[in-house]
Amino acid sequence: MKLPKLIFFVATVVLIAGCQSSKSPPDGDLPKTSDPFSEAKKVLDAQVEAWNRGDIPGFMEGYWKSPKLVFTSGGRVRRGFQAALDGYLKGYTKETMGHLVFSDLDATPLCADALVVLGHWRIEEVKKPSGGVFTLVMRRFPEGWRVIHDHTSVHDE
Amino acid sequence: MKLPKLIFFVATVVLIAGCQSSKSPPDGDLPKTSDPFSEAKKVLDAQVEAWNRGDIPGFMEGYWKSPKLVFTSGGRVRRGFQAALDGYLKGYTKETMGHLVFSDLDATPLCADALVVLGHWRIEEVKKPSGGVFTLVMRRFPEGWRVIHDHTSVHDE
Repeated sequence: MKLPKLIFFVATVVLIAGCQSSKSPPDGDLPKTSDPFSEAKKVLDAQVEAWNRGDIPGFMEGYWKSPKLVFTSGGRVRRGFQAALDGYLKGYTKETMGHLVFSDLDATPLCADALVVLGHWRIEEVKKPSGGVFTLVMRRFPEGWRVIHDHTSVHDE
Repeated sequence: MKLPKLIFFVATVVLIAGCQSSKSPPDGDLPKTSDPFSEAKKVLDAQVEAWNRGDIPGFMEGYWKSPKLVFTSGGRVRRGFQAALDGYLKGYTKETMGHLVFSDLDATPLCADALVVLGHWRIEEVKKPSGGVFTLVMRRFPEGWRVIHDHTSVHDE
């Protein structure tokens, strides 16, 4: 094998082998990644803790600080981090925030840097407790996992 | 440069260059991909067409045929393709299916093989029209794009 051919051959083998992990899984199943949800869940846990100390800006730390953030709840679609923050600041006081509980969190990895979480939420210790189901699409940014799309269903109880 | 070193150098350059597209974007923005939504939208368009001819199994073709499919609407979480299909078959007849319209579809790519779609839906031409917002997480499988997680909010009108 001549030198240019050998280099081409080695380069091709290395390229195929090295990029193997980024290929679609051949069995059509979801990608196997290490457990990214353990990291993402810390972000959600911190959100719940912030909410329960009445800290809305702290709660919002879990969201993507971008005008492209999508937040939909109760049929209303809000776009952008600032609109979502303003909505929470306008909609709640420390007294009406109550005690937030997330439960039955179930994460599905989509790729190394994205996952979707299904979960249930409840706000307790208020005059009118409420709850529902949420879907959170999360992405890993250099600063960590952030919610980029939140679809929350409200079911008054 | 000696031959082994040269091969190592070339292989490294090729590996870095070839895998560049699979790296996280350094600017923290979402990945730039070619337009996968044009393909995914065809699947959603086919779903609407199937619904509007009263074909629930045809509508369900757009969903991932897996026990892991997540489908949540009106506070109820269904898991698995069969449960979602059964729910539709039980909940609708050709007469009550009416005319389905999807609008304001807005897709965000998550990676080459996954995206999330926000959209509005309405069922018209029935006694009690209804509508709402949906979030669809879609993945590209060997057989094409499929919805793997559907969060539909219902807002009676």
